[in-house]
Amino acid sequence: MTYCVGLKLDRGLVFMSDTRTNAGVDDISTVKKMTCWEVPGDRVIVILSAGNLATTQAVISLIDERSKAPADRTPTIMGAPSMFQVATIVGDTLREVIRKQVKESGGKPGSFSGTLIVGGQVGDGDPTLFYVYPEGNFIEAGLDNPFFQSGETKYGRPILVRAYDPKMTFEQAIKLMLVSFDSTIRANAGVDPPIDMMVVDPQSKSVLHSGRFQPHDPYFAQISTGWGDALKQAFNSLPDFSFDTPRDDTGIV
Amino acid sequence: MTYCVGLKLDRGLVFMSDTRTNAGVDDISTVKKMTCWEVPGDRVIVILSAGNLATTQAVISLIDERSKAPADRTPTIMGAPSMFQVATIVGDTLREVIRKQVKESGGKPGSFSGTLIVGGQVGDGDPTLFYVYPEGNFIEAGLDNPFFQSGETKYGRPILVRAYDPKMTFEQAIKLMLVSFDSTIRANAGVDPPIDMMVVDPQSKSVLHSGRFQPHDPYFAQISTGWGDALKQAFNSLPDFSFDTPRDDTGIV
Repeated sequence: MTYCVGLKLDRGLVFMSDTRTNAGVDDISTVKKMTCWEVPGDRVIVILSAGNLATTQAVISLIDERSKAPADRTPTIMGAPSMFQVATIVGDTLREVIRKQVKESGGKPGSFSGTLIVGGQVGDGDPTLFYVYPEGNFIEAGLDNPFFQSGETKYGRPILVRAYDPKMTFEQAIKLMLVSFDSTIRANAGVDPPIDMMVVDPQSKSVLHSGRFQPHDPYFAQISTGWGDALKQAFNSLPDFSFDTPRDDTGIV
Repeated sequence: MTYCVGLKLDRGLVFMSDTRTNAGVDDISTVKKMTCWEVPGDRVIVILSAGNLATTQAVISLIDERSKAPADRTPTIMGAPSMFQVATIVGDTLREVIRKQVKESGGKPGSFSGTLIVGGQVGDGDPTLFYVYPEGNFIEAGLDNPFFQSGETKYGRPILVRAYDPKMTFEQAIKLMLVSFDSTIRANAGVDPPIDMMVVDPQSKSVLHSGRFQPHDPYFAQISTGWGDALKQAFNSLPDFSFDTPRDDTGIV
């Protein structure tokens, strides 16, 4: 399994991904699922991958290879004039790899699949965030859907929905995402630290911060413990139910 | 979709289930998924159903029919000497119905399936809670797994894991479950009020409380709104992240 989040704030983009990969519960490894291409001042592109690891790694390698030999193959993400074109290239590559792997395996659709969160900024464009489907098409984050999750999305969603605020600082966004990752890690053994994070700054069109939270990172431990206590306090602060309150039991038989 | 929770507390059992059923998003209805058989002082048995509605309704009807004509068919849940025997009968009936429906449909396994949360108390036995699989076998709740969820389980799980306490009052448990249901309802359109609840009292071996939260129930609205605010406060109470804190970035490339 995997858990990745890309978040669009007023002040830029924040990305986070876990590193657990597994082929069965008895075969686990650590793999980075976050890739970045950067020409400070011109463009910065980040991809978070979820799905079949051999599939998504082939996609990333192909995109990377083609970006290094732009004369051989166009268009490349390093030459694309906009984030929309970048997402189109990424989607085309994803579909191409999936089709090839399905065909070569004798046609087992579903076994070779993946989804990608693609974000960044190109030239004069705004910071943009896309969710790319295995079919190669994609949707863009906006005011109503300011973040994308991939992989094991459900455990960590409620806190994102409730506490996200477009005016957050990058520091608050990292805190929010760590809470969301903590809820997921506690529930699904297929999601685990180290956790990678990256912050894209729209002013410099470059990576402002990047780093990794190890399993025993003191801040992550503080959030994980503190969140349990804070949740209990939040829960206790709500008014208790009373069975004596009259209720409308229409429909009860 | 569906969301059901059965919770085992030191002082008894609490059950909650939504009522949304759908065949596609354009075909929704309200159906009670909670059924109770009760002979106060002797036994009380509650079943929460999730899965194919025609399948689970057939199971409940069959269990009910057989319990009314115990001379015709034994064993019945009303004559079973223990909750273990009750769960065995329920599991056998579930498997029997699934096999029959799959066979009659020409063999489409998966289309006709369901899981049941079965809880209650029989004779001198303790309050007991089971999770019954489509195969007819089942697991029992204990100190390490004091609650079962079925249907759309993930969104509402983190708060159950964090705030559950076996010493809770019934009132606190209802509050906890409503918070869990609220997180689920906000994320999955296939889960919706009215929400049914039931409390089993081990002293009287009977239903202590039962009732329904309508979509506009004032207490549920208070919990739903209050939980959003309380979560934000809890989140703000955690220490903010700082990019200046040294981190161990081993493995970052």
